[in-house]
Order: sequence, then structure tokens, then C-alpha cells
Amino acid sequence: MAENRRFLLVRRPQGTPEESDFALEASDIPVPPPGGLVIRNRFASLDPAQRGWMDDAESYMPPIPLGDPVRATTVGIVHASDNPDFAVGQWVMGLNALEDYSVAMPGGFTMAIDPDAVASPSNYLSALGAVGLTGYFGLLEVAKPRAGETLLVSGAAGAVGSAVGQIGKIKGCRVVGIAGGPAKCRRLLEDYGFDAAIDYKGKDHEALVAAIAEAAPDGVNMVFENVGGPVMEAEMFNLAHHARIVLCGLISEYNAPEKVGLRNLWQVLARRATIHGFLIADYAERFAEGGAQMAQWLAEGKLRMDEDVQEGLENAYPAFMRLFTGANTGKLVLKIS
Amino acid sequence: MAENRRFLLVRRPQGTPEESDFALEASDIPVPPPGGLVIRNRFASLDPAQRGWMDDAESYMPPIPLGDPVRATTVGIVHASDNPDFAVGQWVMGLNALEDYSVAMPGGFTMAIDPDAVASPSNYLSALGAVGLTGYFGLLEVAKPRAGETLLVSGAAGAVGSAVGQIGKIKGCRVVGIAGGPAKCRRLLEDYGFDAAIDYKGKDHEALVAAIAEAAPDGVNMVFENVGGPVMEAEMFNLAHHARIVLCGLISEYNAPEKVGLRNLWQVLARRATIHGFLIADYAERFAEGGAQMAQWLAEGKLRMDEDVQEGLENAYPAFMRLFTGANTGKLVLKIS
Repeated sequence: MAENRRFLLVRRPQGTPEESDFALEASDIPVPPPGGLVIRNRFASLDPAQRGWMDDAESYMPPIPLGDPVRATTVGIVHASDNPDFAVGQWVMGLNALEDYSVAMPGGFTMAIDPDAVASPSNYLSALGAVGLTGYFGLLEVAKPRAGETLLVSGAAGAVGSAVGQIGKIKGCRVVGIAGGPAKCRRLLEDYGFDAAIDYKGKDHEALVAAIAEAAPDGVNMVFENVGGPVMEAEMFNLAHHARIVLCGLISEYNAPEKVGLRNLWQVLARRATIHGFLIADYAERFAEGGAQMAQWLAEGKLRMDEDVQEGLENAYPAFMRLFTGANTGKLVLKIS
Repeated sequence: MAENRRFLLVRRPQGTPEESDFALEASDIPVPPPGGLVIRNRFASLDPAQRGWMDDAESYMPPIPLGDPVRATTVGIVHASDNPDFAVGQWVMGLNALEDYSVAMPGGFTMAIDPDAVASPSNYLSALGAVGLTGYFGLLEVAKPRAGETLLVSGAAGAVGSAVGQIGKIKGCRVVGIAGGPAKCRRLLEDYGFDAAIDYKGKDHEALVAAIAEAAPDGVNMVFENVGGPVMEAEMFNLAHHARIVLCGLISEYNAPEKVGLRNLWQVLARRATIHGFLIADYAERFAEGGAQMAQWLAEGKLRMDEDVQEGLENAYPAFMRLFTGANTGKLVLKIS
């Protein structure tokens, strides 16, 4: 490969991203800046958060500049190095972009990884990456589960949700998942060991409230929220007193020009619940600790993390859209090369 | 007085209460049940929470039954007693109703009070009552202010809000209040010692966001929320990282058939803020401790609690409506006799 293909953001999406919001262009392979690296990306993580970075809105990270490649966490191999701590051929992960080759400066998110410790280097984008660790730290450090409590997970068949539910089971909780469609609900029960699964599709507000009440007859002690919107609103009517809600994602809202939000805040007040805005970046210093525990659970067979690996940088757009159509069946990963 | 006038709820309000939702009827003065009391009510507290109790909806208290008098905290004098712990003529407070005489059973919320410890027995419904203690425990135990932090209070000229702001000043915070109209904003600065006051009236979302940003240039570390709706939405765009939001009231929503809620939950997530549903009832066992501190601050001139005392049970409806028109100028109290 003599060129660097790059998946560029060329227009800010209005609502659902369109293919023409992006362009695949080729440029020369970069050379390392002083003290820096060039990484040949092998796998890239595709995540709902990337949709937020495409907007021109203040957030926890600056927007992706127009004309730049779409920011993404990748794993890859050092292609060229001007840094004595990183040798050519070494595996690394970092916050790079959807492109064949990324320039990286050690000191940011870039870190060495050991591909022999896992079944596939892509595991560093799933169980041992931000996704798995979002479930790990969000549940254990924010919700602080106690054995016997009921945990409700939305977006439960997704990468974060399935990790959260399985960790909840490891901690002795009753785990109820909400997902879209019978196939996902079956996976919750059969693949991930949830105690109950609720298909939100085809259910209006009252039906969804009733389904949660049936699956959580003593009320919900913890909500791990990945979805927002009407699903979250229905959850709020089933809170136990002093419930803890980990607000981790709002995927139902990201492409919506009019946000639904949370119309029934009164339920939060009356149940004395707490809502905790949560970003995994706050736990960056503890990634090694969390990754080691996740790797152990994987090895022991206590944790299963499915990956939905899509092939080819040229398929970045349809691959990314799988997040929003619900087509992905596990942590969505793009195999770049 | 040979009869017991009672302000009854005869129809559940749809949105804003109408006068015909209530009826003032007279019945005989009750006699104490075994072990119980009859209290001659002197002052009653009028609070936004009463509007919620009028709905036929599950909440932290059962709805007021149709045909029953409107539930209210009152202070009064024991008129008749079948309980050795309470003597006729003694002052008590408790959760009773808008009526001349209430039957009460000691063991619930009924407790003896000392009218000589305060300027007026009505102080037990304001600074030393649920209202003042809502500010006291909500701020000190939930938000946990640190000196130098910025505290934003909505409904700041109200009874809870003005207490919160003054306690924030006692604790060394920068205190910004949001209220409706220039007169209330002037009171925040001149009477209650707030550092800045924002008049939300006539401001659209962008203008309100900008006004808060100007008053809280380093962001808001704590929000004490009494209002909800568009005011709360504007606040969320000015949160400092890890801001604590005490969700104490949502008065803008109580009469609204369509709830606005919180459409921009993303701000809560991105700032890693926490929202804490708060009810003062959870602190009932610490009322004496909080009341003693509030009484001391009152006596030292560090705290001022205005009361808006309306006269006569026959005026219960227009008096109650002052809460929703914003006409009240302090803790709203109805003088019954």
C-alpha cells in the first residue's frame, strides 16, 4: 500500500448522517514528526460518540474539523517511529482516525498493547477498550451494585449493555435488559445470561412501563442508560427509592433534531433517584486495572464480548450506520487492513 | 367558633386549579379519637407540593381523597386531647389540613413546638419548617458546598430559594439567583445578599444561557432547582464539570398538561453532572438539629426569611394561587384563626 486512504468528514450531518457527508480520499503516507509515530491502523472502533463529535457543538471533545478524517480509537502497528519508546512493528492503541496511517504523539492516549494476551487485537477495542471499561467502571464505580439488587440496562444487546449486564450478574444482581426485537432479546437470555429481556419494539409507553414492572417487581435499583428518549421515560416509572441511574449514552437522541429528553423528571424527584453523567475518559488512569479484570473474566468464561467486525475502510459509512439501524450484533469494529 | 370550616378538594384540577375544584364547608368540631388530639389550626403552610397531592397519581404521598380537606402542614393549639403527652393549650405542628380543627394522632408528624423561641409561631412553617429545612439539608447534605464554588438557585426569591442562597453565602459560595421580574431580583441582591440576580422574564433560551454565563463565568458547581422547564434547560448549558444538581422542585411543570422536562440531558452527561432527587421527608429525623441551626442564624441576623401571610380560610383559593402567579413575596402562609 503506497497511499494513505482517509475517511474525511466533509459536511456536518443534519440528523442521520448521509454518505455525502463523508469522502474517501488518498494522500501520501505521512512521516513521523519529531518524537512522534506513524501507526498503520488495523482495526478501528465505531461508536455512537463519533456521531456527537461530528456536530459543531461544544462537548467533552472538540468537534472533528471539516476536512479531517473521522476521529476513532484504533489498534495498529507502528509503521515508522521517531520515538525511542516505540519500535517499528510494535502493537499500539490510541485515539487516531479512520485512515490507513495515523500520526500519533506519545503522551496522549497512545499506549502499547500485547496482542498475545487476547484472542484478537480487536479485543482492545471491545472488552478491554473504552466500551468494555465503560461498562466496568460505570457499573462498579458509579452505580455500585449490591448483591440482590435489580439492574436495568437499556441498549442491552449492544457492546456496552451486554458487558454491563454480565458484570451485574457476576456481582449477584438481578439483571433485566431492554433491546429491540426478539433476536436481540434471545441473545440477552442465552448468550449473556440476563434474567429477563424486554423487547421495546411495538410497545407504547404504558406497555413498556408494565413490562418493566413485571420484570422488576421490587422496582429498579440501578439503571444503566444507553438509549434515552421514550425508553428512558418508561424506566423512570419503575424506579425503587434512591435508585442510581448511570447516564452513559443517549443513542436515540443523537440523530434527532428535536430532543425528547426526560419529560418525567418528577419521577426522579419523587423516588429520590440520582442521575450520574458518566464518561469513561474520567477513568483513563485506571484502564490497566479494569482491562486486567476484564481479560481475566474473558479467560474464565464469565464474560463474553461479541464483535461485529466489518471489512474495509471503503465500507466505513455503511458500517457506521449499523450503529443507528440496530444492525450490529456486538461491538462494532472496522477492519482497516 | 362553634363549627369546623373545611377547605375541601371536590374535583381534581386539570392544569391550573380553578376555584370550583374546591368547596368551603362547615361541619361539627371533631372529638379526639382514643389516644389522639384535636388541634385548632392557627397557621397553615401553602406549598407547591400540595398541587401534586391533588392529582390522582402515585407519588411520595397518596393523593388527597376527593371530598377531603386539602392536606397542609399547620401550627396550632391543642383544643382537646386524649393523649397524656399533649395538654390542651399546648402549641403543636403537624401534617394536618386546611380546616379550623384537625384530628391528629401523635406518632406521625405531630410534634410540640415552642412559640417563645421565635418571632411568630408561623416561623415553624417557614425558616424552621419544611421549607427552611429543605434549603438547609438540600444544600448542605446533597450539594455539599465548598467555599469559593458557584451556586445557582432557581425560584430564588421563593421561600426555599432565598434560604438556599443565604445558606450558600454563609458557606462562602458565590450565589447567583434566577427569579421573575425586577422587583424579585432586587430583593435577591438587597434583602438576601445574593451576588448576582437574573430576571428570566423576557429572555429566550439563548439570552438566559448567556445571562447565566455572565453571572457564573467559571461555570456553575451547584444548581438548586426549584423550577424546571426552560429555566432548568438554560442552566444545564452552564454546568461546570462534575456539577451537582439538587432537584427539589419543578413548579413550572405542576400545572402543565405537557411536561417540558429536560431535553438536553446530553449536557448532564458531557459535564459528568449529577442530578439528585431530593425530598425533605428523608431528613425528618434531623429536623430538630436543622431547626436549631436555622433559629440561631435567624437570631444572629445571618438569615432572613420573609413570610407572605394571607388571612382567612375563606381566602385559601386565591392565597394558594399566589404560588403559581409568582405574587407571593416570601414563604406563603395562610392565617386560619
